[in-house]
Amino acid sequence: MIHDLQSPAQIADDITLLIFGASGDLTARKLVPALYQLLKNGFLSERSLVIGVARRDKSDEEFRNEMQQALIDRGRGRELDADLWARFAPRLGYEQVDLTSPEQFGRLRQAVEERESRAGLSGRRVVYLATSPDLFLPSVQGLSDAGMLPEESPADRLRVVFEKPFGDDFASARRLSESLSGLLTEQQIYRIDHYLGKETVQNILLFRFGNAIFEPLLTRNHVDHIQITVAESQGLERGRGGYYDTSGALRDVLQNHVLQCLCLVAMEPPSMFSAESIRDEKLKVLQALAPGRHGPIENWCVAGQYAAASVAGERVRAYVDEDRVNADSRTETYVAMEARIDNWRWAGVPVYLRTGKRLARRVTEIAVQFKLPPLHLFSTVECEGNMCDLVEARPNTLIFRIQPHESIALSCSAKRPGMQYQIQPVDMDFHYSESFQVDVPEAYERLLLDVMRGDSTLFTRTDELEAAWEFVDPVLDAWQSDAHRPEPYPAGSWGPRAADELLNRAGRAWRIPDRE
Amino acid sequence: MIHDLQSPAQIADDITLLIFGASGDLTARKLVPALYQLLKNGFLSERSLVIGVARRDKSDEEFRNEMQQALIDRGRGRELDADLWARFAPRLGYEQVDLTSPEQFGRLRQAVEERESRAGLSGRRVVYLATSPDLFLPSVQGLSDAGMLPEESPADRLRVVFEKPFGDDFASARRLSESLSGLLTEQQIYRIDHYLGKETVQNILLFRFGNAIFEPLLTRNHVDHIQITVAESQGLERGRGGYYDTSGALRDVLQNHVLQCLCLVAMEPPSMFSAESIRDEKLKVLQALAPGRHGPIENWCVAGQYAAASVAGERVRAYVDEDRVNADSRTETYVAMEARIDNWRWAGVPVYLRTGKRLARRVTEIAVQFKLPPLHLFSTVECEGNMCDLVEARPNTLIFRIQPHESIALSCSAKRPGMQYQIQPVDMDFHYSESFQVDVPEAYERLLLDVMRGDSTLFTRTDELEAAWEFVDPVLDAWQSDAHRPEPYPAGSWGPRAADELLNRAGRAWRIPDRE
Repeated sequence: MIHDLQSPAQIADDITLLIFGASGDLTARKLVPALYQLLKNGFLSERSLVIGVARRDKSDEEFRNEMQQALIDRGRGRELDADLWARFAPRLGYEQVDLTSPEQFGRLRQAVEERESRAGLSGRRVVYLATSPDLFLPSVQGLSDAGMLPEESPADRLRVVFEKPFGDDFASARRLSESLSGLLTEQQIYRIDHYLGKETVQNILLFRFGNAIFEPLLTRNHVDHIQITVAESQGLERGRGGYYDTSGALRDVLQNHVLQCLCLVAMEPPSMFSAESIRDEKLKVLQALAPGRHGPIENWCVAGQYAAASVAGERVRAYVDEDRVNADSRTETYVAMEARIDNWRWAGVPVYLRTGKRLARRVTEIAVQFKLPPLHLFSTVECEGNMCDLVEARPNTLIFRIQPHESIALSCSAKRPGMQYQIQPVDMDFHYSESFQVDVPEAYERLLLDVMRGDSTLFTRTDELEAAWEFVDPVLDAWQSDAHRPEPYPAGSWGPRAADELLNRAGRAWRIPDRE
Repeated sequence: MIHDLQSPAQIADDITLLIFGASGDLTARKLVPALYQLLKNGFLSERSLVIGVARRDKSDEEFRNEMQQALIDRGRGRELDADLWARFAPRLGYEQVDLTSPEQFGRLRQAVEERESRAGLSGRRVVYLATSPDLFLPSVQGLSDAGMLPEESPADRLRVVFEKPFGDDFASARRLSESLSGLLTEQQIYRIDHYLGKETVQNILLFRFGNAIFEPLLTRNHVDHIQITVAESQGLERGRGGYYDTSGALRDVLQNHVLQCLCLVAMEPPSMFSAESIRDEKLKVLQALAPGRHGPIENWCVAGQYAAASVAGERVRAYVDEDRVNADSRTETYVAMEARIDNWRWAGVPVYLRTGKRLARRVTEIAVQFKLPPLHLFSTVECEGNMCDLVEARPNTLIFRIQPHESIALSCSAKRPGMQYQIQPVDMDFHYSESFQVDVPEAYERLLLDVMRGDSTLFTRTDELEAAWEFVDPVLDAWQSDAHRPEPYPAGSWGPRAADELLNRAGRAWRIPDRE
């Protein structure tokens, strides 16, 4: 167990956190609020420094004011805790650096060292690359050129956090990893996937391995299939069209978030709860991942793109009419696939994955659907109000819901009260917000703390990343073909028809996640 | 499936229900209210007759008035539905019969036939023996002498319901069964155990066999032990001292209610959902039941008797000071035992059974406690308010709660939200009253309906009853010894110390059922 932290006191080591690309949205919306919260809860040493680094000219004071405003905006009208802010503000600083100019890193080093020296800090550093991906390598190269990459105990002295995307296919990811490998050790590299910071996602492991009763059920003997859904109701986020149009749903969400969730729900129990043991087991899942059907890509993978439609009485434009999107774009805003995991535990169990924008509802969930009982002993009834109909028995389903409300539910059959043995579906569940008195931490709080304390369990290792790219690469290739066109689906629907057919041909159907 | 009843229309066959011992509590408190409710819900044909039979002289009118008052009392201030009562009252009648006088049965037959003829009924009859047990045989003999036991299709024409106790040990139960067997067929005999009419108890079967995921877990491979608790907070019910003092907790509750619950939770899946298939499987459990330890009875069975104590600030008297109880009574008001089920599924899994009066709380539950996970990957925390301690991981437990509120719960471990992998216990559950819009029927409603429609699934067959007596007989024998004394326990406690030791010696403990 590496998670042997018992009290905040143990993470009191000071740190210098450099945020590259500090002018961006992520810094104001996620990183600084997370750090503020960590300080509040005693998880960030009071002596630590947080230094924003970006191209624009800005004073410490201006940066602080911006961050203060961001915290106020985020609090939605609640007042900022004045005492806490008074402790936090002096820890914030700003340095102007053009990350594309290697010669500016020398000045950065000098400035950081001066700040650390004034603050009496030890020089343990985390560099958070909240930049566009093309600046990843130049940034690390710049640090290297300036002599900022330590030679002794490098993973203790300097860690580098990479936002996604890390490469845009197998080849580019490998090139980037290889270039970095001359500069950083694997232990210094923290590839962030904010999904892994979410409580329910972490709970998958604890639920599976902290209870004795679920693990024996999570095998091909009892599971009919697995469904993972990452559905967004929104279209493109403001200003993101340029990037998204070169990326698409497969690269943007499925290759990372969805596959990571699949790894957690499908992996073998690790022999200990350490970053390397867990990532070894996740890697094995990715390596065993295969297309769910033989033949051409279309047999097991569906691309979709949202078309204009009226959603809740409002006209929603098509993807191709979004800002900064090519009018004849073939980028998929939806992807669904049938995969399988070719190992002893899961052989023969279909895994259905889907993600998309402008779908009917925002929901992220992992559903493990069990087989039906071998024998139907009871008649079944489904009731709405007082009207009851006999229906097919429903299979048990274990659902890890990640968005919008984190919960774990087990759908069961129970006896409908009354004079007959009739089945009625009931849910046994618990919701995070109801079951626990404590606040559920934001994903970025957990992940930032993990970087600072050197716990890489929730970060994607190079071999994992490459295995994930290896799985999706043939799809990306096939979609390069001139003949490929994503199937249009109306904004506000549950995706293209071909995605339904993926499951229907095997007598299955996509879940329609409950409104909660 | 014999439960193929789809709508009330199918049970529209008329019936004549004779309640022997109609002056007793049971008729006013349970039977007539249940019939009233059945009529209301369309489960009792409007042409049926309900005839109270007892020694006292009473007119139809007086009996109706008494029953009306009973319904009003039961409604706790709510007004009686005048329309419904106007339909129900004319169906009620009364006949004065001294059941100990065989010659009076001829007059009863005549009276019943006249009533049936006036009402245009077919003469399908149910005789409900709500009498003291010594009147069971004379009553049936009287029916026989008067020619009221039909020779053709007897089980369709006349059914007889026996209240408990049916015998007070193996020998007397067998004697009674044998005497009855010259008069009634097995299919005419309905031995009532009102526990089996409760929704949660019936749900045990549906929960086990209507879901695919619980059945594979309910075996020696995954279950550590089973606990069944039937705890009453009350002492002796008013006027029941005379009977109870000759009976005791083992005969009064454990031999019937507790063992029946055990059968349902431990039995193999029947090959179909029919009365005989189910009772065959229950019988196999009872036949495989054995003492949990070798050697003398005290090694696996504990008797207790409540002593005077102060409970919630009020002085509660000892059992021996109750009305109509012998001052030097050795009758047990508490019994606990360790048993085992010597079959393939359950070999080696201890079964702990307990029941008692004047215990800390009224609760009936069946708890299946699973084994701990094979490997402890996580640290564990238990929280009350904001105070958290690290504790041992808790095993999963599946709990069927029958009283006071019917529910099914699965206690699990989940991740405590926060920065570490700490286990916190959570319950996934559903409560009957919350999960279902419909009213949960009273046990007697269900059971009376079943008698009327000829479904004996929820009634104890002769061989079951005898197997249950065979299991407890050696204990009853041993307790005849002059040396035997039940261990005193303070009223309001959870029972005698020796009962705790039963489990403690194996590193286990009785559950302390949650307050709901």
